[in-house]
Amino acid sequence: MPEQPELTVQGWGPGTSRVATVTASEGAPEGQLELTRDPELPLPKAARRHLARELGWQPRSTPPVAVGEIRLAPSRLPAEVHEALVALLGEEHVRTDREARLRRAGGKSYLDLLRRREGDASDAPDAVALPGSTAETAALLALCAEHGVVVVPFGGGTSVVGGLSGIDPDDRPSLAVDLARMASVTSVDVASSLVTVGPGMRGPAFEEALGARGLAFGHLPQSWEYATLGGYAATRSAGQSSTGVGRFDELVAGLTLATPSGVLELGSPPASAAGPDLLGLALGSEGALGIVTELRLRVRPAPRTRRYEGWSFRTWADGLAGLQRLARHDLLPDVVRLSDPEETRANLLNAGGAGARLLRGALRARGRADGCLLVAGWEGLPHVVRARRRAAVTVLREHGAARVGRRVGESWRAHRFAAPYLRDSLLDAGLLVETLETAATWTALPAVYDAVRTALRSSLGRPGRQPLLMTHVSHGYATGASLYVTVLADRDDALPLQQWLGAKRAATEALLAAGGTLTHHHAVGADHRPWLEREVGPLGVEVLRAVKQRLDPQGICNPGVLLPD
Amino acid sequence: MPEQPELTVQGWGPGTSRVATVTASEGAPEGQLELTRDPELPLPKAARRHLARELGWQPRSTPPVAVGEIRLAPSRLPAEVHEALVALLGEEHVRTDREARLRRAGGKSYLDLLRRREGDASDAPDAVALPGSTAETAALLALCAEHGVVVVPFGGGTSVVGGLSGIDPDDRPSLAVDLARMASVTSVDVASSLVTVGPGMRGPAFEEALGARGLAFGHLPQSWEYATLGGYAATRSAGQSSTGVGRFDELVAGLTLATPSGVLELGSPPASAAGPDLLGLALGSEGALGIVTELRLRVRPAPRTRRYEGWSFRTWADGLAGLQRLARHDLLPDVVRLSDPEETRANLLNAGGAGARLLRGALRARGRADGCLLVAGWEGLPHVVRARRRAAVTVLREHGAARVGRRVGESWRAHRFAAPYLRDSLLDAGLLVETLETAATWTALPAVYDAVRTALRSSLGRPGRQPLLMTHVSHGYATGASLYVTVLADRDDALPLQQWLGAKRAATEALLAAGGTLTHHHAVGADHRPWLEREVGPLGVEVLRAVKQRLDPQGICNPGVLLPD
Repeated sequence: MPEQPELTVQGWGPGTSRVATVTASEGAPEGQLELTRDPELPLPKAARRHLARELGWQPRSTPPVAVGEIRLAPSRLPAEVHEALVALLGEEHVRTDREARLRRAGGKSYLDLLRRREGDASDAPDAVALPGSTAETAALLALCAEHGVVVVPFGGGTSVVGGLSGIDPDDRPSLAVDLARMASVTSVDVASSLVTVGPGMRGPAFEEALGARGLAFGHLPQSWEYATLGGYAATRSAGQSSTGVGRFDELVAGLTLATPSGVLELGSPPASAAGPDLLGLALGSEGALGIVTELRLRVRPAPRTRRYEGWSFRTWADGLAGLQRLARHDLLPDVVRLSDPEETRANLLNAGGAGARLLRGALRARGRADGCLLVAGWEGLPHVVRARRRAAVTVLREHGAARVGRRVGESWRAHRFAAPYLRDSLLDAGLLVETLETAATWTALPAVYDAVRTALRSSLGRPGRQPLLMTHVSHGYATGASLYVTVLADRDDALPLQQWLGAKRAATEALLAAGGTLTHHHAVGADHRPWLEREVGPLGVEVLRAVKQRLDPQGICNPGVLLPD
Repeated sequence: MPEQPELTVQGWGPGTSRVATVTASEGAPEGQLELTRDPELPLPKAARRHLARELGWQPRSTPPVAVGEIRLAPSRLPAEVHEALVALLGEEHVRTDREARLRRAGGKSYLDLLRRREGDASDAPDAVALPGSTAETAALLALCAEHGVVVVPFGGGTSVVGGLSGIDPDDRPSLAVDLARMASVTSVDVASSLVTVGPGMRGPAFEEALGARGLAFGHLPQSWEYATLGGYAATRSAGQSSTGVGRFDELVAGLTLATPSGVLELGSPPASAAGPDLLGLALGSEGALGIVTELRLRVRPAPRTRRYEGWSFRTWADGLAGLQRLARHDLLPDVVRLSDPEETRANLLNAGGAGARLLRGALRARGRADGCLLVAGWEGLPHVVRARRRAAVTVLREHGAARVGRRVGESWRAHRFAAPYLRDSLLDAGLLVETLETAATWTALPAVYDAVRTALRSSLGRPGRQPLLMTHVSHGYATGASLYVTVLADRDDALPLQQWLGAKRAATEALLAAGGTLTHHHAVGADHRPWLEREVGPLGVEVLRAVKQRLDPQGICNPGVLLPD
């Protein structure tokens, strides 16, 4: 198959959003409220036609409320707490103004966006504090514990599971703790591949600092431009290269967790047998046990070569079997992204340019019009990449995969952070747009895939209207893989929240029953709390409560997430 | 350098022992007390001369007390508990006879062996129970919690850190829970590389069961012939191939932990972001939180090829630098074992046959008589092994390493479980023989190495007598590596316990101060408890106490290990 020019392959996931008006810009929380960048990627005509036909949807205009009209209640932060915080952090690092509060209101889930679009900022904190050190953070937590003020850590504001909801059963005043001032590399140990860094640092700045020393980190979730390293730790994030470089939790050699009961210094690189793993308790704790104030991360030499390319499998089953076999023999590429037939079709329609037309034609000619596209990427030392790729290609061909060229892979790489910017246009035009994800063993994966799709179709379908469900595998392991589902549907403008809550509930029940995990990389947040007990059992929840009780006896640490009521 | 014939390269570590008279033989707890196999490896004359010269030691005869003369107090198990256990498990699975109790008395540390050699079995349990299922184990724990009976899980009895000490501050009766009846593979999921297995299964039987299906596990600590899978989980074991296949804790996809408060089912393969990692709390819990009753382990295809070989570095610093560079670029072989000059010299002296003489001569001729031997091993698919080895060899040569042939590697592989059998002969002849281990970042490793050696020399040295300290790196990571030190010294026959306790204390303080971890793969046990707070901090210990309080409120679960008094 020929190499293709001018092709744009991308997904539709969330993570960023234009309604991110209310996102703090790094290091400048005092700046103007601005729209985050909007590259104005209009949908190609073919994609619009495809969506209208598939969904039974008529484009309509449902714009969000203007920023100036968002409703915000007055701050309830007690004056004595305000004064004590000012004494601790300095006046400029304690904010109660409208702008500061709106910028830290909620995250980027569909539910968050719906609320915000309607002008509801009831999830905004009463105040914002910006500590500059572990000691200041610990003192702040002790102060808030004493006065009964809820504390919600704020990194990039990109949670898609209600991680910033600030929900508190006792409705106490809440403080967003923005970590933007703790955002630099504080030490680099090249020989040990370890770098110490503040939790407020973002991916692009981190990679830039490392690149100057010939190093790289390689954690690239779709929220990469905004999300922070502390947030990755708190949510057990996975990135687009995690199959190769490891999940974020695997890259944390140590961290500092400030809690209302004191400071924990966790992790003994390279490894330890000194009892249970407390570092693993802090990872994924979502601010409910305390605030991550420093991270010690494993880095690696900057890759000397990269190779990204596209492959086409005849069927989803063939694709899964091929990946499974690669995984079993430890031959998975660093990046693997296998789209199901629906996502493949949608991505090809969404792709612009003559190249996309050529590719569509070539796939049709080979009887692969309904096949599954795989983006595979290798990075590292040239001779190692060559050997690994050669071994993987043998397996891919044995499973009937055909190469569709490097242009497809490079195009995906070039546009991999762009897709979420589409989301606001789709919301404006009357669509429901959300994603969900899970992971399962290779054996359970096909059943989980079927169960989730059936549940979503049944919940969201109505006569003449069907959701579009686009699924991909993007993280492979020896024992299984992730599934990521993007859902588009005609929005129920009367009851939009209920429409999604019903679909989400159905999908979650279905994936758990089929053997999937509650979440592979989005975390529990507020949205998944009702099912945590299904994941770890009632006694597991009790163990987490015991840990929280010891570290946060007043329950001020992000009480709206993780643990069920 | 020519390939060498007839060469035996081995270490001196513990793990098994002839004074393991008192080791339960698998599946036959009712059998006769037997000596475990003793391959009768006498020390070559050169090695004896070397030891006498280095240590200032004169071989003498200090035989252990005969098994029949070991002192054992009457069982204190309350009659009502005995009756209830019989009702639960059946008469044949509740034992209070001398043989059953002696077989589960203590582990294989130098301190354990000294006590046992003197005829002291005060660490023997009052009774032994053999549950056959998770439900029976959970019921047993609830029963013991109700009646205040301490429970110590028993797998292979190979702890070298006092993990089976049974110490209880309240001196309650104690029950050894032998897991030998839960020792089979219960399910195999080849596609997902997952196998479910009972905790009492031993390595050889597990590999045999897997081999029949073309699978392998590859966890090979020196205690492999006796230790159990449940014990590996409880202690965060590492094996000789862990650099390649991963530490045991990395191979556990899930487990069942029976506790006095109920049963935990932990782990969501392949990965999950559903909150803190509870599986990581159960791993390394050493029986102090409950008993592992089932494991779900990640297996792999049986390797199609193996290549083991020896390399010689001019200096320890060169060797460490070479391994560090390999680690940084993810090029470490699956097995790496780099001996320091003292261990290299001792191993070559200890090696028998003409091959050893030839090798010694060849190294001398190349000016490498005082160099460091590296055993490197690769396993897997032939073309992948070839490519990985080729890349590694380039790095090794850049660091001045010279190849000393496959015979050295194969000899090490052939004899790798033999060394501990030497230990009893050395003890009989009046020696102190013990090991200790740690890990540190590549940057801290040289300082940790120096600090431990200085502390041991200073503690154990006397005029005319010096300990022999043989050190190797055997587990490499991107961020650092392990250090394993074998200590031989002339035993102080008047105060042998105090002699070692002083040396151990000095070495532990030194390695912690220099940045090493308390233990890389032997666990905390009774011996390392005083330093756990140094490893995880006072608040870290409090978190572990909170978890234990929730799961084991009566504190019956192995109270003598892990947590300090």
